[in-house]
Amino acid sequence: MLFKNITIIDEKIQVKENIYVGVEGDTIDYIGETEPEKDYGQQYDGKGRLLMAGFVNAHAHSPMTLLRGYGENMALQDWLNKKIFPFEARLQGEDVYWGTLLAMAESIRYGIVSTTDMYYLTENMVNAVVESGAKANISRAITNMTGRDLFTMEEFYEEKNAVELFDGAGDGRIKIDASLHAEYTSDPDTAMKLAQYAKQAGLNMHVHVSETAFEHEECKRKYGMTPVAYLNSRGIFDTPTTAAHCVWIEGEDFDILKEKGVTVASNPISNMKLSSGVCNVPKLLEQGINVAIGTDSVASNNSLDFIEEIKTFAIASKEKYKDPTAVTPVQAIYAATFGGARSQGRWDCGKLETGCKADLIVLDITGPNMHPVHDLITNLVYSACGKDVVMTMVDGKILYQDGEYKTIDIEKVIYNVERSTARILKELDSNELVTRG
Amino acid sequence: MLFKNITIIDEKIQVKENIYVGVEGDTIDYIGETEPEKDYGQQYDGKGRLLMAGFVNAHAHSPMTLLRGYGENMALQDWLNKKIFPFEARLQGEDVYWGTLLAMAESIRYGIVSTTDMYYLTENMVNAVVESGAKANISRAITNMTGRDLFTMEEFYEEKNAVELFDGAGDGRIKIDASLHAEYTSDPDTAMKLAQYAKQAGLNMHVHVSETAFEHEECKRKYGMTPVAYLNSRGIFDTPTTAAHCVWIEGEDFDILKEKGVTVASNPISNMKLSSGVCNVPKLLEQGINVAIGTDSVASNNSLDFIEEIKTFAIASKEKYKDPTAVTPVQAIYAATFGGARSQGRWDCGKLETGCKADLIVLDITGPNMHPVHDLITNLVYSACGKDVVMTMVDGKILYQDGEYKTIDIEKVIYNVERSTARILKELDSNELVTRG
Repeated sequence: MLFKNITIIDEKIQVKENIYVGVEGDTIDYIGETEPEKDYGQQYDGKGRLLMAGFVNAHAHSPMTLLRGYGENMALQDWLNKKIFPFEARLQGEDVYWGTLLAMAESIRYGIVSTTDMYYLTENMVNAVVESGAKANISRAITNMTGRDLFTMEEFYEEKNAVELFDGAGDGRIKIDASLHAEYTSDPDTAMKLAQYAKQAGLNMHVHVSETAFEHEECKRKYGMTPVAYLNSRGIFDTPTTAAHCVWIEGEDFDILKEKGVTVASNPISNMKLSSGVCNVPKLLEQGINVAIGTDSVASNNSLDFIEEIKTFAIASKEKYKDPTAVTPVQAIYAATFGGARSQGRWDCGKLETGCKADLIVLDITGPNMHPVHDLITNLVYSACGKDVVMTMVDGKILYQDGEYKTIDIEKVIYNVERSTARILKELDSNELVTRG
Repeated sequence: MLFKNITIIDEKIQVKENIYVGVEGDTIDYIGETEPEKDYGQQYDGKGRLLMAGFVNAHAHSPMTLLRGYGENMALQDWLNKKIFPFEARLQGEDVYWGTLLAMAESIRYGIVSTTDMYYLTENMVNAVVESGAKANISRAITNMTGRDLFTMEEFYEEKNAVELFDGAGDGRIKIDASLHAEYTSDPDTAMKLAQYAKQAGLNMHVHVSETAFEHEECKRKYGMTPVAYLNSRGIFDTPTTAAHCVWIEGEDFDILKEKGVTVASNPISNMKLSSGVCNVPKLLEQGINVAIGTDSVASNNSLDFIEEIKTFAIASKEKYKDPTAVTPVQAIYAATFGGARSQGRWDCGKLETGCKADLIVLDITGPNMHPVHDLITNLVYSACGKDVVMTMVDGKILYQDGEYKTIDIEKVIYNVERSTARILKELDSNELVTRG
């Protein structure tokens, strides 16, 4: 495909106008001010359109779309114990499959090309993402809490099969990561064994870190160390790691994250909605720590509108850390694109650069919300609407364009999501009756 | 028009399905579960659609769309003195007209049917709003700062003409309010005279209150009173008042606002983006003070996406006041609709109720972002996208539907906005050159 006379955001996150971009196979083959001689097939008229690298959602639990708006306005423990955990305990493979496909449909609609995704029944997630045409780093979250043993040590070793079976699926669009769910949902031995396994198998790591003050303080009380120091002592950061949240990190935590090359995936909307706090993104950026942006699950967001997430990422820090100059639009777009791609170990993604993968999105910039144009990148971060995305392409293949999904039967997905949800709610209802009886 | 088999949010902010709603002239004439016998003309198929009261933007400076994204990432005083004030000083009537029309186009696109608007050169705002078909309470902001006398005492008295000329324009769609810009931009005598005038003329009042900690503390130092107490002592609240921001109000301020029936217009995105803070909406609601939602100007937002504003209104409070149960979706929708309408003195607006004005919006609720439906109002607040609005109607007249503006020539508006902006930037540039020379 050849994009003609289109405005782009280039690999340096600078705006250029009237550019030609040629896509050959899954790769960006040409970027230039003049029309290339080579024939790239289909042509796309770039008038009033912005072409840029697609967004990377650096922390998600895709199947939880099924819990969108389920159990709202509750305190965290009530919400988890009375709503989320009982619902999740009833999830079957096909529920996870349909929930993930719904997440992919919404993600693609909002310009997300790749997701760092942590859940369980992961083979169903793999199938859904492969079908959708999107990319994902998928991990089974390892826990060994007593009481709620969703994930046992046995499942932990099954992970090896997951890697053999699924890593590289969908022509490399799927990567399998290791995942320790969190410090507080596992013991030191499990954390260490998983760290060793990940390192030996060459897998990236995905872990929740210091999301709430309670979790952070409890860890200090229990181990005499912050979660970051504890996880580091277990070897978790010896493999490239995405640490989700990091709202309450302090002191030497910043040094450890920096030294170990950990990416912090900030989830501003979820953190605000659950009253968890606001990640100190300005300090992370100042220290040169890689920062990416995540939506967290739809159960605590409750959307995958990534432009909304990017805007919130910037303004939440400005408010919390009392500095209107903190987190510039360029920093926000970097975090939303290449910041996420490198956290996934996809060094040839997340950038509009020759030789990189053609994971691209097109936005309609003709609307009243995008004028006047004093600075297009500022307009993109603060004034654009999620649904200004009009095309999403992954590995050179169009997945969504102008209201139409190319790989997903959206009516069928919504039908099955509603069916899964209804079945689980019915099961929960009859269980309640039994208990009452 | 007859909406058929449509899902609605009714006047109690409850969801009802398969409803018939008949609009006769400018009024909601029928709401029922059965098809009315009366012929309402054009029929609208409600399948997959949500009908509700349109949004009321309770605090805005519409002409400042011209400054969207102009002067970003700056500290507040730098931003105001080096960017905003010099730009504004060059605004002419036609700039204000085109800027307001652009704001109306964006507002209508996002389901805003009425705006409480404070600026100057107000006759141009009136003309633009009347043309657009939307509603607005328009006020000229009175200041008498030394140094930057945009608004003089002479203009203050001209207000009487504004009222005579414009109040009730556009078949009552325009209301003229009085406005004291703020405590810190006027003296006690001006505040008192304006309060007396507003009361005698029967005008609502629009005023900025305790937006920043600096302003709040300076007032206490200067007058030994908080801004709320000071404004009350001047009689400002003796007329129905919309107090914008109220981020730093404290102690007895809450009692005064409650006793005087003042509406607080909270502007969460602007307040976060400028590092001003987060209004204590949970406490205001707890005390029974009317709360509405505003976008503030596009220069500090930078959009008029009202669904985004509503979501931020809820989650900003949850984070700041450490309570995930604070500000329910129903409270947020109330604030976004009737909370705003009553602050404008439009008691027959902001509700989907028989006999009320047909200021209605329709949302497409078929998208992946709106499924599954555990609770539609929760989905509306947290999962909907601004551009899910597919129709906006004011006084029974469709202003926007499915990508098409019925009253606004959007290409012409954008052309003229860019032209105005370019002229002002050129003037600023040549001034700079002169200074350098």
